Amino acid sequence: MLGCGNVGADVARLLDQNRELIAERSGVDLTITRVAVRDGKSKRDVPLPAEIFTTDAEQLVRDPEIDLIVEVMGSVHPTRELLLQALELSKPVVTANKELIALHGEELFQAAENAGVDFLFEASVAGGIPVMRPLRESLAGERITRVMGIVNGTTNFILSQMTQHGESLETALAEAQRLGYAEADPTADIEGFDAASKASIIAMVAFGVVVGTDQIYREGITDVTERDISAARAFGYVIKLLAIIEEHPDGVSVRVHPTFVPNSHPLASVDGVDNAVFIEGNAVGQLMLRGPGAGGGPTASSVLGDVIDASKNLVPGSRGPS
Amino acid sequence: MLGCGNVGADVARLLDQNRELIAERSGVDLTITRVAVRDGKSKRDVPLPAEIFTTDAEQLVRDPEIDLIVEVMGSVHPTRELLLQALELSKPVVTANKELIALHGEELFQAAENAGVDFLFEASVAGGIPVMRPLRESLAGERITRVMGIVNGTTNFILSQMTQHGESLETALAEAQRLGYAEADPTADIEGFDAASKASIIAMVAFGVVVGTDQIYREGITDVTERDISAARAFGYVIKLLAIIEEHPDGVSVRVHPTFVPNSHPLASVDGVDNAVFIEGNAVGQLMLRGPGAGGGPTASSVLGDVIDASKNLVPGSRGPS
Repeated sequence: MLGCGNVGADVARLLDQNRELIAERSGVDLTITRVAVRDGKSKRDVPLPAEIFTTDAEQLVRDPEIDLIVEVMGSVHPTRELLLQALELSKPVVTANKELIALHGEELFQAAENAGVDFLFEASVAGGIPVMRPLRESLAGERITRVMGIVNGTTNFILSQMTQHGESLETALAEAQRLGYAEADPTADIEGFDAASKASIIAMVAFGVVVGTDQIYREGITDVTERDISAARAFGYVIKLLAIIEEHPDGVSVRVHPTFVPNSHPLASVDGVDNAVFIEGNAVGQLMLRGPGAGGGPTASSVLGDVIDASKNLVPGSRGPS
Repeated sequence: MLGCGNVGADVARLLDQNRELIAERSGVDLTITRVAVRDGKSKRDVPLPAEIFTTDAEQLVRDPEIDLIVEVMGSVHPTRELLLQALELSKPVVTANKELIALHGEELFQAAENAGVDFLFEASVAGGIPVMRPLRESLAGERITRVMGIVNGTTNFILSQMTQHGESLETALAEAQRLGYAEADPTADIEGFDAASKASIIAMVAFGVVVGTDQIYREGITDVTERDISAARAFGYVIKLLAIIEEHPDGVSVRVHPTFVPNSHPLASVDGVDNAVFIEGNAVGQLMLRGPGAGGGPTASSVLGDVIDASKNLVPGSRGPS
């Protein structure tokens, strides 16, 4: 495991808690054997022996005893280089790192394909909600025509507070910060950068197009006023920050902006920090997948699901990469 | 392909329509080479050559040129025997047959495991909604504690009509029959038999328990009156027919019955013929997957997703069964 912050600690705890269930159900016995961290001496509340922590991430990646790399350290460098090295060594990689995939997804996918190993990233979009696997596998026979997502819990919480309690953006943001839903510097969330990274990943997986986050039309929620919200209400709408990826005759458009959503639309009732991804396809019609978009438990659950999938593919003779 | 009714014809059409997209995205080139039907002479509106139709299903299953069996003929006999034979011959099987799985799932899963091939049945529960794959793969690291599903579109339509338009059960049922949502004999739907089959499949996949449909507490919607619906409304509830599968200290309970659902619950807003499956787990918290529960297009989409998954596992050296 590369990194052991909140998500890493939750992955370790969840594995500790559900190890027997996982072995029984999936036939894989998972052990975290090494964890690379920046500060090897700091005390951590995780069910892992102190001696498996190291500050040498490169050595961890090269260790021939390690079969699979879980990346929960975040950031783009040196993460990209470490994961490329792992893939070159034919080690499957599971990551929750949306910025990295939005920036270097194509290169990483290609490296995984060349090595014939899994590169899985379910947790990078919509936290605990299964979105990547349904898009890639369940809907593999489908021509997906549009995906609309509430993919940022912070802004959905703020807009929900404004809608339900008539709060101003400032008050709702302060409340989100007090509850730990928004960071001290909320720019990445409220200006739509986070949603744009996720839109870029969805565009890649659902439509096979590479769209850099700087090419995405992006408008955050900072200009949404109480007056906008009540005007929307008067006409039977709510305002949601949506990532919209849709097919057009001449290509695929990708954009992030506050959107009027009719009250009768399934996305309208997705409130608070919940996320939801609404999918339209030529045969299936309309689907919506809804749940927690962030938080240690949900993210760890997605990471662990990917780890189990990739691990099953490592059993000799029985599976290969997806 | 065994059978070529509505679902089979839609599978053939969807494959015809999306073949290139599938080949490009998933690297598998799928061809329907034989179709077993009861009446080989009847004219069919499907994009398949007349000469591939046969009435000899057994010969089709044994044909060494056929790599994978799609079962859309329905019913339990001789379907069970044909699918067991296919699995014994190491041919992966994709089916949409809920009665068969509810009755003989364990035997079929075991036969698939013995042969080391896929037995996939996403379309058997909640039509076009990805439910089986998320439960089995995405949530493989999760202890699932409860699943509650609106898994019968006919009864959800009837209850929605009663709730929204104050209709009586009889009027709403007649309307459902007129629209083709309910059969002339609606017993399987309105008495909860269909939902019980699906509850049994969910119990197997999410909790690993085999519960025969005759062991499931089952109460349909025939006793739900307009008065019940308005009493529910007065207290902030709607009535939904739910399949509820939940973990208890001493085992797993499986039941189907009309349920008071608070207006604020995500299941409350799932109206009309839509289905939804609400999942609770120890790490992920609460998820809801919503979409079309029936219909040719959605069901064909799920079948084709399974076919692509199983086909990728057939490519020599690259994959095995899941």
